[in-house]
Amino acid sequence: MAITFEVIKECKRTGARAGRLSTPHGIIDTPVFMPVGTQATVKTMTPEELKKMGAGIILSNTYHLYMRPGHRVVEKAGGLHGFMNWDRAILTDSGGFQVFSLSGLRDIEEDGVHFRSHIDGSRHFISPEKAVEIQNALGADIIMAFDECAPYPCDYNYARKSADMTARWAERCKKAHENTDRQALFGIVQGVTYEDLRRESARQITSLDFPGYAIGGLSVGEPKDIMYRMLDVTVPLLPRGKPRYLMGVGSPDCLIEGVIRGIDMFDCVLQTRIARNGTAMTGRGRVVVRNAAYAEDFSPLDPDCGCYTCKNYSKAYIRHLLKADEILGLRLITYHNLYFTIGLMGKIREAIMNDSLPELKEDFFERYGYSAKKSGD
Amino acid sequence: MAITFEVIKECKRTGARAGRLSTPHGIIDTPVFMPVGTQATVKTMTPEELKKMGAGIILSNTYHLYMRPGHRVVEKAGGLHGFMNWDRAILTDSGGFQVFSLSGLRDIEEDGVHFRSHIDGSRHFISPEKAVEIQNALGADIIMAFDECAPYPCDYNYARKSADMTARWAERCKKAHENTDRQALFGIVQGVTYEDLRRESARQITSLDFPGYAIGGLSVGEPKDIMYRMLDVTVPLLPRGKPRYLMGVGSPDCLIEGVIRGIDMFDCVLQTRIARNGTAMTGRGRVVVRNAAYAEDFSPLDPDCGCYTCKNYSKAYIRHLLKADEILGLRLITYHNLYFTIGLMGKIREAIMNDSLPELKEDFFERYGYSAKKSGD
Repeated sequence: MAITFEVIKECKRTGARAGRLSTPHGIIDTPVFMPVGTQATVKTMTPEELKKMGAGIILSNTYHLYMRPGHRVVEKAGGLHGFMNWDRAILTDSGGFQVFSLSGLRDIEEDGVHFRSHIDGSRHFISPEKAVEIQNALGADIIMAFDECAPYPCDYNYARKSADMTARWAERCKKAHENTDRQALFGIVQGVTYEDLRRESARQITSLDFPGYAIGGLSVGEPKDIMYRMLDVTVPLLPRGKPRYLMGVGSPDCLIEGVIRGIDMFDCVLQTRIARNGTAMTGRGRVVVRNAAYAEDFSPLDPDCGCYTCKNYSKAYIRHLLKADEILGLRLITYHNLYFTIGLMGKIREAIMNDSLPELKEDFFERYGYSAKKSGD
Repeated sequence: MAITFEVIKECKRTGARAGRLSTPHGIIDTPVFMPVGTQATVKTMTPEELKKMGAGIILSNTYHLYMRPGHRVVEKAGGLHGFMNWDRAILTDSGGFQVFSLSGLRDIEEDGVHFRSHIDGSRHFISPEKAVEIQNALGADIIMAFDECAPYPCDYNYARKSADMTARWAERCKKAHENTDRQALFGIVQGVTYEDLRRESARQITSLDFPGYAIGGLSVGEPKDIMYRMLDVTVPLLPRGKPRYLMGVGSPDCLIEGVIRGIDMFDCVLQTRIARNGTAMTGRGRVVVRNAAYAEDFSPLDPDCGCYTCKNYSKAYIRHLLKADEILGLRLITYHNLYFTIGLMGKIREAIMNDSLPELKEDFFERYGYSAKKSGD
């Protein structure tokens, strides 16, 4: 068994739980936020910085690494851990989402997907077997079944056929997976925004008995209350003793709402992406530090934050770096945003252990400038 | 006195000397290489990283900081040290070189220089007094007189008039300088590539009795042997007991040749600039790590280097980061190039102390792929 998962504590007033995920590269407290290292690097950060902020697991992307530098190069470097000098846990997604979102020309058939590289237009084919072969070479602790992430909005018939094919692909992935002793393969539930399709997909995927389950195809444009409803209908059908991973979701409000609905794992590019636009996440909402209002503001991004950035640099300095296109500016905000999010998850876990999660939610949403109602609860 | 300088040891077989420069922000062993932080940040690096590689003094640019964010903003932040979170020494250049090299439209007169901002085209005027006023606000430990850096090639008459005006400007700078107790003002010798003008400029500038002297207007396109000849005629005219700073020069061969001719301080953007092109400096010459030859080279940039980058990452990984436009690639090469250069200066100083500088030079040039002859010696 590559991983084991244990539920430590279940919240009495919500669906949340605190758990412990053991991987070949360390033990991770859940719920957990996984920083995204699409191309074998979490943008602008070193592994040491990620460790310092408390990251125990990061995500990387099969599609990108297959395109560049190629999975065989990564394999020769000792897998992703050796290649990127990261000795804690890694999860790779299957490439399904990227094939559908990044590649212009693609042709989906039962066997797999023909598509063109977003880098040089070259033609490629990924099947469920190929996606597993690539991920076996990359060597992440957790790997994902190859799925079709259907678009939103999507008509019912397409959504049903797509979810059915995703289930057949999941079975083929399971058969193709070689390194079950050191890589755990997770299945992915699809079904777009249709409650009955989500339920049917959850039944199909859980019948294959994976060591963990992801919920895919959400946060792709649908309103948040629809996403939350899909979680409400899906999560109860997932086995209690296995980790549950909500893919591509990670704004602070969604993290809280997801945990409350029983999610254990999250990943999101939001933290690093908004950093590049000069936006910091804080306990009082977002701070667009590029704004002229901060030109002579010598206070930190977040007065309540104890991170390296907030302890040492002012908004005025970070704004200057951004205006001058200096990379240190991106580094400082990226560090802060990831630290903030990992810290928030730590507080959420503590609240689960203390039976105070609803109070944390209320307090956070009030300070963050959401009303609990607006957020779809 | 803002600074004191002591010659610790003079080389018997060359003009080199090892010294100690005491500043309000720490003591610096010379000869020293100063990483360049043009816009109040050494590109891609944090202050902690600069300290880890042994940097005791960095350079920043008056012109850039005057344009953005403005010297008054920096002053309000506690000066450059507070603004950028750097508690070791800083040297600011006067803006002279940048006004002449970056600004398109400019109009030089006895009083000062009218020019347009390279950022937004706005009109500005910097006089010697203004350059000192800005540098007083920035608060660096060492500040530079405002000079005209004449172009190369340059006709004799222009060069003479320019050097004469630079001497008059130096006198005005000295009069305008307020914080003599905590900021040392250096004079700059000009004279393009004319030996008699260099000598005359050295006499003019040293007659003003500055606490340190720079040699400007070199490494601006002239052949290296001409630069070395200018040092040969200029350095002997500078007082032995004051630090000598060769501005804008810092390739490994020029560092060695400069030290041999009695230079104590250097700065250069080369290290950070070639990092951005994917080029590493090593003890065996430059490595263009972007090259396809390194796609599956899992050895470090420099097998003889003990820096963070070389201890943890392969050429293949760094090449991947560069090809994928990932900032970590720039960080890793920048760190290595600065570490390499600061380390080289450490070895040079040790060789001065051990009376083995000529041997170090011969060995270095042989491994680096220069013949001593080609380098202009």
